[in-house]
Amino acid sequence: MREEFSTWIKEIQKRICLEIEKVDGKEKFFVDKWTRQEGGGGITCVIQNGSVFEKGGVNTSEVFGKITPQIREQLKIKGEDFFACGISLVIHPYSPMAPTVHANFRYFEVYDKEQNLIDCWFGGGADLTPYYLFEEDAKHFHQCFKKSSEQFGTDLYPKFKIQCDNYFVNYHRREERRGIGGIFYDYLKPSEKFTKNELYEFAKLNGEAFIEAYFPIVEKRKDLPFNKEQKHWQLIRRGRYVEFNLIHDRGTIFGLKSNGRTESILMSLPPEVRFEYNYQPKQNSEEDKLQQILMNPIDWT
Amino acid sequence: MREEFSTWIKEIQKRICLEIEKVDGKEKFFVDKWTRQEGGGGITCVIQNGSVFEKGGVNTSEVFGKITPQIREQLKIKGEDFFACGISLVIHPYSPMAPTVHANFRYFEVYDKEQNLIDCWFGGGADLTPYYLFEEDAKHFHQCFKKSSEQFGTDLYPKFKIQCDNYFVNYHRREERRGIGGIFYDYLKPSEKFTKNELYEFAKLNGEAFIEAYFPIVEKRKDLPFNKEQKHWQLIRRGRYVEFNLIHDRGTIFGLKSNGRTESILMSLPPEVRFEYNYQPKQNSEEDKLQQILMNPIDWT
Repeated sequence: MREEFSTWIKEIQKRICLEIEKVDGKEKFFVDKWTRQEGGGGITCVIQNGSVFEKGGVNTSEVFGKITPQIREQLKIKGEDFFACGISLVIHPYSPMAPTVHANFRYFEVYDKEQNLIDCWFGGGADLTPYYLFEEDAKHFHQCFKKSSEQFGTDLYPKFKIQCDNYFVNYHRREERRGIGGIFYDYLKPSEKFTKNELYEFAKLNGEAFIEAYFPIVEKRKDLPFNKEQKHWQLIRRGRYVEFNLIHDRGTIFGLKSNGRTESILMSLPPEVRFEYNYQPKQNSEEDKLQQILMNPIDWT
Repeated sequence: MREEFSTWIKEIQKRICLEIEKVDGKEKFFVDKWTRQEGGGGITCVIQNGSVFEKGGVNTSEVFGKITPQIREQLKIKGEDFFACGISLVIHPYSPMAPTVHANFRYFEVYDKEQNLIDCWFGGGADLTPYYLFEEDAKHFHQCFKKSSEQFGTDLYPKFKIQCDNYFVNYHRREERRGIGGIFYDYLKPSEKFTKNELYEFAKLNGEAFIEAYFPIVEKRKDLPFNKEQKHWQLIRRGRYVEFNLIHDRGTIFGLKSNGRTESILMSLPPEVRFEYNYQPKQNSEEDKLQQILMNPIDWT
């Protein structure tokens, strides 16, 4: 599974990068390959200042080695060695009419002293962060992941949708979410219900679903007109994206505090951001409408 | 001491706000008084979009109540009740030629079940974050705090200067500091060496030193010409300021996770910020010169 998953993330990384370049039409990805001293490395693909995408990062990494006390504490795992690989991406369009998106698919293995595999699991998800709410986009995005999940049972999507709503929350701003969600799952282990291969298939289906979920939305919204006030609102909302990623996101904080590759981790931060004191959208405005949804997530399917 | 310190922080808050308004010449502070449900409250003074200051917050707060498990764990304290008051300020000028500054002076008391005072301490400091290095400014800033400290012994400034250099560090970017430092001290308790009143005098002297240290620098730099590239560099460096405050700053993280007043805590964030992938200044440029100093702090006095 190590090799299979590792091959798949690099394949889908390429496909997503090509898709982004196609939609953008102007900029190409910059590819940064890096190695990790303790074992492994990654491929960081970054696009900046495109005609559609102001900043985007599509990263894969494959790391392995000893389970350090820090990793042990964070992941609550036993064992001697680990292997982890995954793809992680964040795309920030320039237009406030086009949503930001994040997706992540990962696979983890744990070994004992004799290098026997003693544990393994899959994690992943995707979530959408619009600056203006187009209900049909939210429905489309969620519908794609509902469809990909339903092949493995009707209980998965509702469960992973709620997990997503409960994860991407700026708890320091009451219950404000960073976006309108999607799906989020972790620690999916082979069991009587799903074999390892089925869980791998599930990841792959969600990867396909991501491509189907996001790019049609950007295509539809990228050329809509917008004004200065709408751009300003996007920069304020991007501030909340920064707050979530740096204050609450487990992956980001763990990566930064465990000697991860800083530039690859922080590629998720939006290019231009504003922080203003106590900014509040006007009541019943489009901005307020979005904010209400972020406080009270709804069922889009 | 509760009343005395609390009175002093509100006095110096007013003086600093007046000084900022005087230097700015255009904008006035917006004053937000708030109360804390569990006990206490604060005065948040914010200035935005001035002619010199793009954003500034000068806050005082006075909070008290039960020591919750969260406070107990964070502060490693025993006791039943606490009282804390302090002034905290961050000022972001618009011009990249004028430095950002932060200062904070605080006083803490702990009581047992019978409301007897069982512990108390002072903390504080000030640090400067220039975007371009004017050595004479760095020297002046440090000299002011050296002078204020020396009235209580020549060992204090060197000790508190190093503590400052070791605190404001973006550890996820090797050893890059957010600025050129100043002084930082905490847990100064009454002892054989200093009475409570002397520690209070020390805080007051440092408060005066802050006014003397910062405003002459802004006056000197606020009207210097600058170009687009220099403004761009400031926005990148401001990104590092955000990273420090949200990832590493104990006060910020504790405040946000313990139901503190979010808007007052996050007033410290710069108004406009940029995050770019792997941004590196040109070798031997002025920007690079600053960055070298941030990696290797020097003795300015």
